[in-house]
Amino acid sequence: MAIHLGQNSYGESRVRLLRVARQEGRHDIRELNISIRFEGDFETAHTKGDNSKILPADTMKNAVYALARQHSVEPVEEFGLHLMDQFVTYNAQVSRVHIAIEETPWSRLPLGGKPHASTFTRNGDERRTAQLTGTREGTTIRSGIRNLVVLKTSNAQFEKFMRDPFTTLKDEKNQILATVIEADWLYPNADDEDVQFGPMWHGVRQMLLETFAEHKSLSLQHTLYAMGETVLNNFDNVREIHLSLPKKHFDLIDLDPLGMDNPSSVFLPTEEPQGSIEATLRKD
Amino acid sequence: MAIHLGQNSYGESRVRLLRVARQEGRHDIRELNISIRFEGDFETAHTKGDNSKILPADTMKNAVYALARQHSVEPVEEFGLHLMDQFVTYNAQVSRVHIAIEETPWSRLPLGGKPHASTFTRNGDERRTAQLTGTREGTTIRSGIRNLVVLKTSNAQFEKFMRDPFTTLKDEKNQILATVIEADWLYPNADDEDVQFGPMWHGVRQMLLETFAEHKSLSLQHTLYAMGETVLNNFDNVREIHLSLPKKHFDLIDLDPLGMDNPSSVFLPTEEPQGSIEATLRKD
Amino acid sequence: MAIHLGQNSYGESRVRLLRVARQEGRHDIRELNISIRFEGDFETAHTKGDNSKILPADTMKNAVYALARQHSVEPVEEFGLHLMDQFVTYNAQVSRVHIAIEETPWSRLPLGGKPHASTFTRNGDERRTAQLTGTREGTTIRSGIRNLVVLKTSNAQFEKFMRDPFTTLKDEKNQILATVIEADWLYPNADDEDVQFGPMWHGVRQMLLETFAEHKSLSLQHTLYAMGETVLNNFDNVREIHLSLPKKHFDLIDLDPLGMDNPSSVFLPTEEPQGSIEATLRKD
Amino acid sequence: MAIHLGQNSYGESRVRLLRVARQEGRHDIRELNISIRFEGDFETAHTKGDNSKILPADTMKNAVYALARQHSVEPVEEFGLHLMDQFVTYNAQVSRVHIAIEETPWSRLPLGGKPHASTFTRNGDERRTAQLTGTREGTTIRSGIRNLVVLKTSNAQFEKFMRDPFTTLKDEKNQILATVIEADWLYPNADDEDVQFGPMWHGVRQMLLETFAEHKSLSLQHTLYAMGETVLNNFDNVREIHLSLPKKHFDLIDLDPLGMDNPSSVFLPTEEPQGSIEATLRKD
Repeated sequence: MAIHLGQNSYGESRVRLLRVARQEGRHDIRELNISIRFEGDFETAHTKGDNSKILPADTMKNAVYALARQHSVEPVEEFGLHLMDQFVTYNAQVSRVHIAIEETPWSRLPLGGKPHASTFTRNGDERRTAQLTGTREGTTIRSGIRNLVVLKTSNAQFEKFMRDPFTTLKDEKNQILATVIEADWLYPNADDEDVQFGPMWHGVRQMLLETFAEHKSLSLQHTLYAMGETVLNNFDNVREIHLSLPKKHFDLIDLDPLGMDNPSSVFLPTEEPQGSIEATLRKD
Repeated sequence: MAIHLGQNSYGESRVRLLRVARQEGRHDIRELNISIRFEGDFETAHTKGDNSKILPADTMKNAVYALARQHSVEPVEEFGLHLMDQFVTYNAQVSRVHIAIEETPWSRLPLGGKPHASTFTRNGDERRTAQLTGTREGTTIRSGIRNLVVLKTSNAQFEKFMRDPFTTLKDEKNQILATVIEADWLYPNADDEDVQFGPMWHGVRQMLLETFAEHKSLSLQHTLYAMGETVLNNFDNVREIHLSLPKKHFDLIDLDPLGMDNPSSVFLPTEEPQGSIEATLRKD
Repeated sequence: MAIHLGQNSYGESRVRLLRVARQEGRHDIRELNISIRFEGDFETAHTKGDNSKILPADTMKNAVYALARQHSVEPVEEFGLHLMDQFVTYNAQVSRVHIAIEETPWSRLPLGGKPHASTFTRNGDERRTAQLTGTREGTTIRSGIRNLVVLKTSNAQFEKFMRDPFTTLKDEKNQILATVIEADWLYPNADDEDVQFGPMWHGVRQMLLETFAEHKSLSLQHTLYAMGETVLNNFDNVREIHLSLPKKHFDLIDLDPLGMDNPSSVFLPTEEPQGSIEATLRKD
Repeated sequence: MAIHLGQNSYGESRVRLLRVARQEGRHDIRELNISIRFEGDFETAHTKGDNSKILPADTMKNAVYALARQHSVEPVEEFGLHLMDQFVTYNAQVSRVHIAIEETPWSRLPLGGKPHASTFTRNGDERRTAQLTGTREGTTIRSGIRNLVVLKTSNAQFEKFMRDPFTTLKDEKNQILATVIEADWLYPNADDEDVQFGPMWHGVRQMLLETFAEHKSLSLQHTLYAMGETVLNNFDNVREIHLSLPKKHFDLIDLDPLGMDNPSSVFLPTEEPQGSIEATLRKD
């Protein structure tokens, strides 16, 4: 039987950089972590060890550094489009390029009531993300958020669920609802449209947080849908959003054996096991 | 514009267990980490908070424990089929079930020249994996390996590659080739066939290692293809294999500034950036 | 030769809890991670397997839960003193107790210009810490901070350092100075004094940050000392402070090979290797 | 009040290297991760920013690379002594040097029944360690082991322990005993003695494992002591050993609510909380 090379790609992952922009009296910094993957005509590289169509992954890294020298890296989507243009224009052997960018946010240190000009603290685990997929026909962008941890202590129930002989969970009228928001939304024709990526990102993020906070949650599915629906209803140029919301468990500790009640007071945070919920919502 | 719920799923991740089988004079242990996801008729759960078709993720966890009590968990693929049967049979609301199993291998402590009956050491980061996807029509299984770190100091080149103005990499006649093998291969009709999952897994693993060791590598793509090809050629019932081989970099340290040569002697292991290569190979 | 049991201890680590305090219209949450170690008369447990003086580590965990039910956990130092009192009072076999508390800060979600009553986001990696050491004579407390990442792009030099034949580093007139602040300071007689632990902690933290931002740094040692000195000079009841400031490297990328200059613009963040600097400062 | 600089040090951490030794028909590799810290006369560096006695941490890194070019890095203790000699000899400003070395073991790939000449797999998380402390008077070495995970399913009890009102743990006649061995032992005059570091290390490791396996354990303290005692009794030149044995919990899962018994069959591995036990044993 003949053997065929199916889908394949290669690239460079975790290319990191910090870009400093210096103006009189004010510095700005951006930290990025970038991954690039090429799909294309690499059959003979696999079957014969012919590297003539293999641009080294190391060169992709250099291209990132060079373009970060020449262009602003903010917003990440625009910088991604510069990278895409570079790779698609000069690589006839490539049919499709994937670029994933993660930004680690830093914020200015507040000092004496105002933000410092050149000192920064890192905000934590939250990341701003952009995934670009480009061909000679055009580029789509998915902007997103990762690792945004949220928790609410009210307006969260989980009741009247399906039961089978292995079900031991009780109805919860008043649970702690906690998750790690991972969301991304689609701009289908990113290079033709005139999207304000920065304000859009902050707008979507704020709407996701507000809906999480205000929603009378009957389940995490219910809240996920409400979060996605609000974004689609409020932003014309977002036509699709994907949300992945793991359930972070905080279990009420049984203090009965210690002779105490525990009226929704002391909870055990656990990492394992973890519930997982995800869905894509689309506008027609 | 109307909003539609697209692809969606939920489940329980990182359900862990250790199963001990006790015979006279010999104990056996298996450690598993299991994730389960349901696809199905969950529209009203999202849109209305109607949980009547939502079997709690917590119940999935209980089912894992119960079935681990009733059945051997070895090989993991067979245990996965028991789980699949449980979930597909008793959940009419579900259209598709995904089960991912990772086994953390333990080996018997060698003592006085023979393996100990009841004491074990953990082998390290390598994991044996199985991913099952089941519907009422049947189940496919992808068996696999993760986190198997290998390195070779000979028979590895990378030369005559494509160059552009950002290319600074030099031809490497004698590089260190190191990767973290992630592989999975397909059994398309797992519940109809009579596959010997255990011997198969060990056979594929050994073949991947042998090919990595013996191949005269002109690139990591070249070696990846050779590894996949050997498996497809040697195992009739493997029709498709996917390999993901990140390139672990070991860079020759430039000792010129210290007045020394460095004839392939002292290398710097780096984690970032990292090359990434992946491909699927198929038999007709 | 006789064998002696030297210093020894046991305990329970990583006891986690979330405590929710519910008032009308406002919930408060605190997340803690607690470790406890006992020193004492455990010789026969080691030498003979006599457990009669071994209070199970599991009981320490239960004690934490019970006391978190009975007491506020804020500030962490006060909660630590409650725990200490419990363990020292009821365990005659114990000569010394160590309690380490880490608080993971959560902040209220800002919504419509004001903090939400019951929805929170996690602030990131920074942790508030307290280490208590108690005997029947009294308790000392070290309050502290971990994982506070800061970076400045001005006022940082490193020049005129010692050189030897292996030195290749060049004088840096304008480096990026970045570190992960780990600090702890001593309250020698915590149970006798009337320390306002909460305001003190926030005051010390703010002073460390201000000094880091404003100091004209000739080295990280120089800045470390300035940070410690400011705290000792401004807080009477802090008599000793320990600072550990690893140097997070951001290296200017050499773009010469790509035909570009790089005037302090694009930097490479690296995790390995990492400089490390630590010192204790004391008042007479 | 005057402020004094107390104990202080600086250095370079996580200096990594892979060293390849090439003979005809056989390559050998060693991977090390090294940290160095200097104590000495650094007061004016802290108080005045005078760097004239500060050898850059970057130079320490270069010294490691240079000495790894000149010397074998095996055994790690000998390589540490070369580093120590370099730092103590050429740095009059330094009073004490700390060097910590971790070796990541790689083993030869077995192929066709024999070890391969130039292909290796990484063994996992276990590390071989050496900590050297040197002054102009001499050097002490602590050799050690980290991250060696072991588990036994028989001969482990924990009974007749102390109880207080918060104790809910039941006597365990037949528990799973699992830990992560961290051990280090002292060679007080490393540069005067003629220690065979390699065979010693393997001998101590084997003895720790054998004792863990064969000991009739009445508690983890009891087993820890037995492990240390055996090493001290069997190796003349080991006069002190320190053991840290966290208790990895594997809890029998209660299947009663699912209508099943669970006769020591299915266990839940948990990471949090974790017991911790440590002790030092000494010969007179």
